[in-house]
Amino acid sequence: MDASPFDLASLAAANLPPPAAKWTGFAKYNFVGGHNDPEHVPLDGLLAAANAVLKSEGRTLATYGLESGPLGYRPLREFLAHKLKAHAGIACDMDEILITSGSLQAIDLVNALFLARGDTVLIEQACYGGSLSRLARLGVNAVGIPLDGEGLRMDALAAALEELKGRGIRPKYIYTIPTVQNPTGSIMGQLRRAELLGLSRRYGVPIFEDECYSDLVWNGDRPRALYAMAGGEGVIHIGSFSKSIAPALRVGYIVARWDVLKHVLPLKTDAGSGALEQMVLGEFCPAHFEAHVPKLRAGLRAKLVTLMEALAEQFGTAAEFDDPPGGIFLWVKLPDSVDTQELARAALAEGIAINPGPEWTTDRVYGRSRLRLCFANPPHAAIREGVAALADVCHRKFGVPVRTANVARG
Amino acid sequence: MDASPFDLASLAAANLPPPAAKWTGFAKYNFVGGHNDPEHVPLDGLLAAANAVLKSEGRTLATYGLESGPLGYRPLREFLAHKLKAHAGIACDMDEILITSGSLQAIDLVNALFLARGDTVLIEQACYGGSLSRLARLGVNAVGIPLDGEGLRMDALAAALEELKGRGIRPKYIYTIPTVQNPTGSIMGQLRRAELLGLSRRYGVPIFEDECYSDLVWNGDRPRALYAMAGGEGVIHIGSFSKSIAPALRVGYIVARWDVLKHVLPLKTDAGSGALEQMVLGEFCPAHFEAHVPKLRAGLRAKLVTLMEALAEQFGTAAEFDDPPGGIFLWVKLPDSVDTQELARAALAEGIAINPGPEWTTDRVYGRSRLRLCFANPPHAAIREGVAALADVCHRKFGVPVRTANVARG
Repeated sequence: MDASPFDLASLAAANLPPPAAKWTGFAKYNFVGGHNDPEHVPLDGLLAAANAVLKSEGRTLATYGLESGPLGYRPLREFLAHKLKAHAGIACDMDEILITSGSLQAIDLVNALFLARGDTVLIEQACYGGSLSRLARLGVNAVGIPLDGEGLRMDALAAALEELKGRGIRPKYIYTIPTVQNPTGSIMGQLRRAELLGLSRRYGVPIFEDECYSDLVWNGDRPRALYAMAGGEGVIHIGSFSKSIAPALRVGYIVARWDVLKHVLPLKTDAGSGALEQMVLGEFCPAHFEAHVPKLRAGLRAKLVTLMEALAEQFGTAAEFDDPPGGIFLWVKLPDSVDTQELARAALAEGIAINPGPEWTTDRVYGRSRLRLCFANPPHAAIREGVAALADVCHRKFGVPVRTANVARG
Repeated sequence: MDASPFDLASLAAANLPPPAAKWTGFAKYNFVGGHNDPEHVPLDGLLAAANAVLKSEGRTLATYGLESGPLGYRPLREFLAHKLKAHAGIACDMDEILITSGSLQAIDLVNALFLARGDTVLIEQACYGGSLSRLARLGVNAVGIPLDGEGLRMDALAAALEELKGRGIRPKYIYTIPTVQNPTGSIMGQLRRAELLGLSRRYGVPIFEDECYSDLVWNGDRPRALYAMAGGEGVIHIGSFSKSIAPALRVGYIVARWDVLKHVLPLKTDAGSGALEQMVLGEFCPAHFEAHVPKLRAGLRAKLVTLMEALAEQFGTAAEFDDPPGGIFLWVKLPDSVDTQELARAALAEGIAINPGPEWTTDRVYGRSRLRLCFANPPHAAIREGVAALADVCHRKFGVPVRTANVARG
């Protein structure tokens, strides 16, 4: 007997994540999340594309998968095959591309292909928090590999692979964001990529290549993808339109040899990803993608300059960072006395949202006084005001920065 | 040492589903899948809505979740709260509705909330194949409850609950499609619904109410939802726009009390469902949903009549079925000598796709000579030709039907 069928405590599965709080809107100064610049959503082009494609093919919305099958809308996959060849040197067939609901679903599908509780993967020491939280939820051991200015350090990777091999452990994959690494923004050079592929082959550990930021290299000079260098052997490649067009569209993709993709496809049991997004992008991109992205990059670069200037002015030498070669975020080191998780809590209470370093790394000590600032979404004025407000909170809580624009703080 | 990093046999997770075959297009006579009628996609309305909403709010595409938060686009949730009150008697707040990527994601999220390997659930003996396959993949014991003309038989449900209780097993939920049950098309009456809620409370087993077909009752007379009758206590309700607008849009929803939904929301880690679909529906539905659906229903009803006439003509008394009060499918009983899985294989080889009964039930003996025919997508002529072609295959393979339109088959 139980009067309340919903005593969730006794009904719910074990180890659920903490419950959600009601959403109360974005922080006034929002430096978190992969949001993009509203001014650079190619609205006229998307509108024209929506009208054209709905007029020509709208009735196919009555059919699951339109008439393109479970891999996704054919014109979009055709564009991607062309784009990946032109931008990343990837020679792949349209049927080696699976359209996903954002690259997050791509990550979930690749994880579902490989991972079981207790497995081990190798991952960049500072890394996308969403990848880390997924691995934690799956009960997978994520071994962080230290980074340098080119990303994964090969000496550290080789040592980790050898050490694991000695213990009879074969990692399921090496996860890397080689082009505009999240959060450091580094780009892995061609030589380093070749070394990485060599280690991958030597130890029989495939590479999971996440290139969702690779359209946002300031000078447009994107290195050949690991997938291209390996001819697709031993590499799964994922990408996204979230950073190049608009994140709310939720359109990403997986590139893999068919002998791998045929095992991924049955794991995608959602009866297809959103059709309107795919149709609109499939219509928009062939004609307008190449012209759109450089304008977006210029706008993002200008916001990064504003952010770096504001940090220099407000934090002076207390904020250390490299000028990243692309992307939407800046990885900042504050003095060791600053605990960025405490800073994030105090800042949020004053309407400033930041990503504290420990949520973006496998090494909490390394991350303790670091933070990630996303700059694509807030207007220039909000970036300046937000950084000033953050400096105030930081000074009150940790005594740094000591001076702002050569003026000592009280 | 391993020359091929991708020896998936040693790398992939255990118990993956069988690999996919390359997609070769739909069968010429396609009687499977929840596809809808292309002639009844409200294209002009969707086009107008896309133009209006992209002009007024397009720039919010730069932000994950638009500016509505993780539950989904606010105007769409506002419409749903109004619709659910008007159509199903559900009094719920906009924040008790979570927009999902089709009702399939809704099923996955509810399963993730409750289910672990080895758990038991109660489910309709003849039931949506996608729900059955999900439970099998999760390693959950799905106990099928026999059906009658009103759906779940209360005597059988009570017996199963008591029997399980005697073995110390508390099922995680009772899954039901009470309005236009899939595949039987039955509608559970108000009295039966009250009995079901009574058993749910008595045994402390919540109800998982799947109402994705409830807009398609021919006479528009949809009973009060179980969720409404229970005031949301002990019931999770899901629905979809796939059957009322267009399946390729992939827009469904979960209705649950916030004290439940707050545990579901963190399981949705996809950074939101497709925004264009949500924006277009949020713009289209308040003005046009009520006028659109009756036209769609009339078109579907006409196709059902064509299907039933074709079956009567081609199969005569060999095909038994009830005239369903709504929906997009017909559940057909053939003579016991017919194995519909063999029939499906033979028919597919001749360009006719059907759902064999055993894939749509927990009781393979009950399902053996039954099949599901979906009628929304094929044109009237294709329905007639396809049923004739199916009768030919069936006669050649199983010797039935013996006669067609009073003419004995050779």
